[in-house]
Amino acid sequence: MKQKIAVLGPGSWGTALAQVLVENGHEAILWGKNPEQVIEINQQRTNHRYLPDLTLPEGLKATTSLAEAVNDADAILFVIPTKAIREVAHEVATMISNKPYIIHASKGLEQQSHKRISEVLAEEIPVEKRKDIIVLSGPSHAEEVAVHDITTITAASVSLEAAKYVQTLFMNDYFRIYTNDDVIGVELGAALKNIIALGAGAMVGLGFGDNAKAAIMTRGLAEISRLGVALGANPLTFIGLSGVGDLIVTCTSIHSRNWRTGQLLGQGKKLDEILENMGMIVEGVSTTKAALELAQQLGVEMPITEAIYRVLYEGQDIKVAAKEIMLRDGRVENEFS
Amino acid sequence: MKQKIAVLGPGSWGTALAQVLVENGHEAILWGKNPEQVIEINQQRTNHRYLPDLTLPEGLKATTSLAEAVNDADAILFVIPTKAIREVAHEVATMISNKPYIIHASKGLEQQSHKRISEVLAEEIPVEKRKDIIVLSGPSHAEEVAVHDITTITAASVSLEAAKYVQTLFMNDYFRIYTNDDVIGVELGAALKNIIALGAGAMVGLGFGDNAKAAIMTRGLAEISRLGVALGANPLTFIGLSGVGDLIVTCTSIHSRNWRTGQLLGQGKKLDEILENMGMIVEGVSTTKAALELAQQLGVEMPITEAIYRVLYEGQDIKVAAKEIMLRDGRVENEFS
Repeated sequence: MKQKIAVLGPGSWGTALAQVLVENGHEAILWGKNPEQVIEINQQRTNHRYLPDLTLPEGLKATTSLAEAVNDADAILFVIPTKAIREVAHEVATMISNKPYIIHASKGLEQQSHKRISEVLAEEIPVEKRKDIIVLSGPSHAEEVAVHDITTITAASVSLEAAKYVQTLFMNDYFRIYTNDDVIGVELGAALKNIIALGAGAMVGLGFGDNAKAAIMTRGLAEISRLGVALGANPLTFIGLSGVGDLIVTCTSIHSRNWRTGQLLGQGKKLDEILENMGMIVEGVSTTKAALELAQQLGVEMPITEAIYRVLYEGQDIKVAAKEIMLRDGRVENEFS
Repeated sequence: MKQKIAVLGPGSWGTALAQVLVENGHEAILWGKNPEQVIEINQQRTNHRYLPDLTLPEGLKATTSLAEAVNDADAILFVIPTKAIREVAHEVATMISNKPYIIHASKGLEQQSHKRISEVLAEEIPVEKRKDIIVLSGPSHAEEVAVHDITTITAASVSLEAAKYVQTLFMNDYFRIYTNDDVIGVELGAALKNIIALGAGAMVGLGFGDNAKAAIMTRGLAEISRLGVALGANPLTFIGLSGVGDLIVTCTSIHSRNWRTGQLLGQGKKLDEILENMGMIVEGVSTTKAALELAQQLGVEMPITEAIYRVLYEGQDIKVAAKEIMLRDGRVENEFS
C-alpha cells in the first residue's frame, strides 16, 4: 500500500533513501532548512551539493516546513546529524497525531548523555504518539544507492513486525533489507565503527600496509564489540551488515569522511584544518570521546579508541600513538569479559 | 631460549615466517623439494620467485632433505599446500623422536574427507610422537611481513600453553601474535574465507561498487560462520584476526590469488585459463566444493558458496549467479540455527 514518508534531512543519504521510496511507489517528502536547496530539489530535480550529477525522480518533493512534511505521514525517517536529533524530534512530537512509525538512519551517540539515537527519539516522542522505532543501517554509500548499485542494509527494531514494515517499504531489486531485533548492537556498530575508520585511515596515512590496516580494523571491531556487549548488544550483530559490513565499506573507500579524516591525520595534517576543509560533520570525532567515557564508566578496555582520543583531543603525535598501539603485549582473542 | 624450527614449504609465507624466526634469534631451516630454489636460498640469499627483491638473513638455511630439516627440531612448521599435507606429515612422523610442537600455517580443507589440516596432522603424526598442534593464521601478506610492516596474527591451540609457546617464538616489534583456543574456528575461518574472496573479487570484476562488495563479504562471513558453528566453532572467532581480519586483507588487496581469480571470473575469463596463468594453487576453488558438501551434509544454508560452486563447477554464467544471489528474499540477520 502506498505510504507517505517524511524524510528529515536532505543530505546525500536522506536524498538517496527518499529516491528509493519514490521508486518503490511511495510518497516521500524531504524536509530541510535551506530554502535554496528545497527550491533546487523541487524545481531543478537536483541536489547538487550532496549528490552531484543525479536527476531526482518526479515524485520526490521537498519542503522547509516540518509540519507539512510530517503531517499524516505513515512513517518519519530521521537522517540528520546526531546533534540535531533531539531538537527536531521534540518539535516533531508536537506536530503528529496519527501514530507514525519512527525510523532513523543516523550514526552517532548523543554528546554528554552518550545515548543512542533511538533512546533520544523515544524520550522526545512519547510512546502514545508513535508506533515502534526502527534503525536503518549498513554498508551504503549514498552515491551508489542513488545510481542503483546493489546495496544491502539492516532494519532493526525490538518489534520484528516493525522491522518488516520498513523492509517492505524499501526492498527492491537493488536495495536489499535484512531484519534484526538487536537495536542496541545495530546502533552501536553504526556509531562506533566511525572511530575505527579514523584509525584505519590513519594507518594508511602513516604509510602502513594492508596487514596493519586489517589489524586495526579487526582489533578495533573486537573492542567496539566489547563495549557493545557491556551495553547490552548481541556480539554477533557486530559481524553483520551494520557492524563489519559498514566497517568494511567505510574503511576501504575514499567516500568516507571519517576514513579521510584519519588518513589526513596520518599524513600529519592538523585536526582543526581537516574539519574546516571537510565542511561536513565527521561523527567519529565526537563518537571517540563518547565511547571512551562509556568504556571508562563500564570498565571496558579500548586501547585503539584511547589512542585515537589522545591524538584528537590531547595533541599526541600520531606516530607515537600508532607505535604504542601496535607494541602492546600479545593478548588472547575474543575476550568479552 | 634458542629453538630449532623446521619450516616445511619455501613459498612466500614459509620464507617470511622463517625470516621472522631467524630475526628473533632462532634457528630456522626451510625444507623444499626444488634443488635450484634451495641452492638459491643458501648461496644467493634470495627466493626470487616468491619474494622478489628480498635479501634473506644470513642465518636462514634451506635443505632438500626432510630428515635434516626435522631432525631435533623443537617445532615443525607446515606451510605447504593443503593437498600435500597428509603425505609430508606421514613422512615426518617416521623421522622424529624428540616430540616437537607441530605448527601449521596452511589454509584449506582436505579434498574428499573435508578434514581440517590439524585433523590431518593429528592422524598422521601420532600423539606420542609430538607435543600439541598449533594453527597460525591471520591477515598477513608475506610480502609485507618480509619488509617488517606491522602484522598481527593468531596462534590457536586447544592448549593455551602451546599457543603461548608459538606466540613467544614469533612475537617481535612488527609481528604481533594473539592466542586463541578455538582451533576449529580459526582453521575454518582461514579456509572458508577464500570462498568469499572469490565472490568479492567477482563482484568487482562484474563492475559492482563498494556497497555490493561489503554486502557479499558480510553475508559471506555470516554463512561461513554458520557452517563453522555447525562444525563446532565459536562464532566469535569469525570476528577475529583469522576470520574477518583475513577476509579484509584478502578482499581488499591485489596480492590475493583467490580475489584475483574471482575478479577475472567476473570479467568473463574462463576458470581453466585463469588457473593456468596463475601458476600457483588457488585454494578457494577446492574449498568451495568441500564447504558445499559439508553444508549439505549438515543442512546449513550457504547461498553464496552455492552460487560460486555453480560458476566454478557447473559453468553457470557469473552474471546470472550474481543476480540470483542478490535477489533472494530479505532475511533475518544472525541466524545460527
